Amino acid sequence: MQILEIETTSHTEMIDITAEIATAISKNNVKSGVCTIFVPHTTAGVTLNENADPSVRKDFINVFEKLIPKYERYSHAEGNAPAHIKSSIFGSSLNIIIEDGKPVLGTWQGIFFCEFDGPRNRKIYLQITAT
Amino acid sequence: MQILEIETTSHTEMIDITAEIATAISKNNVKSGVCTIFVPHTTAGVTLNENADPSVRKDFINVFEKLIPKYERYSHAEGNAPAHIKSSIFGSSLNIIIEDGKPVLGTWQGIFFCEFDGPRNRKIYLQITAT
Amino acid sequence: MQILEIETTSHTEMIDITAEIATAISKNNVKSGVCTIFVPHTTAGVTLNENADPSVRKDFINVFEKLIPKYERYSHAEGNAPAHIKSSIFGSSLNIIIEDGKPVLGTWQGIFFCEFDGPRNRKIYLQITAT
Repeated sequence: MQILEIETTSHTEMIDITAEIATAISKNNVKSGVCTIFVPHTTAGVTLNENADPSVRKDFINVFEKLIPKYERYSHAEGNAPAHIKSSIFGSSLNIIIEDGKPVLGTWQGIFFCEFDGPRNRKIYLQITAT
Repeated sequence: MQILEIETTSHTEMIDITAEIATAISKNNVKSGVCTIFVPHTTAGVTLNENADPSVRKDFINVFEKLIPKYERYSHAEGNAPAHIKSSIFGSSLNIIIEDGKPVLGTWQGIFFCEFDGPRNRKIYLQITAT
Repeated sequence: MQILEIETTSHTEMIDITAEIATAISKNNVKSGVCTIFVPHTTAGVTLNENADPSVRKDFINVFEKLIPKYERYSHAEGNAPAHIKSSIFGSSLNIIIEDGKPVLGTWQGIFFCEFDGPRNRKIYLQITAT
């Protein structure tokens, strides 16, 4: 298992980690397989989406702020109930296919770490299985 | 493949299955790998989230009840359209990394079986692949 | 890695690809393992849900049209911001367990390709790892 460290700088943000994941994968000698990306946090997530236009990320953040508003009445006392809920909607794990030692992504796809309760120091776990 | 059985007791609930998954994983001799957790139901799901404060689960249930209300006009005649939709939002499969024969989770993370149309007898499938 | 091609015919639709996935899996000689299904697009997704009653799919489309409406103010200029967001909610990858060379699904479960910005020619990537 490999561990990546990431420092987020805002309360809510989507950080492109495609290059870091590709580098970590290339350090293994697995030519063909699957990389499991796992976020060990309950107020963050990981997703695939467009990495060409940064405004896509802004839309994401706004839409989810509307759907799961900060100032509702929640039972959880720490004030970060929306972050927990977003974490489950986006998900904490992803599978990326590896061919020729590289992640196989679509033309417009990037891998994003999703911070919903930052800024914080975060970790990302990677496990690679060969075909 | 291993099969776990679970009996849910409410219409909508999130049940912590972390210990059951850890026990099932320990029965294999896989030291390092990935465990695929798969829910073979269309009105249930599986997710990772905080297992320290039970109020987090209450917030989840309330937020999704508001977003996908029971008493809307749905085409599906069985009355459980919201359960089908929640199942796809939370997702039916998860990947957990295994190291030293144990699931690698974050400090606050638990694995939750999500019942959206209970009470019912449910199954959880597990498949383990070694690195 | 195997590549499936699919032609969607509507702007938003859920297409049952269970048979195509089963055929692709059967072409491998893997008896027991995991199949990673990966959608290399940022305005489409893949999910598991009921394939018996087509009205379930209609409900899905209507609920998400209400939650993430087309005619909101989005930053992304191409007019398909809702499609990007739905893609991340449904997710771009799925894991299916393989036993006896076949996908193991629940009685009512089907695998659906989710088109959110069609009609288009789309691809689905499959990677199979043995246990």
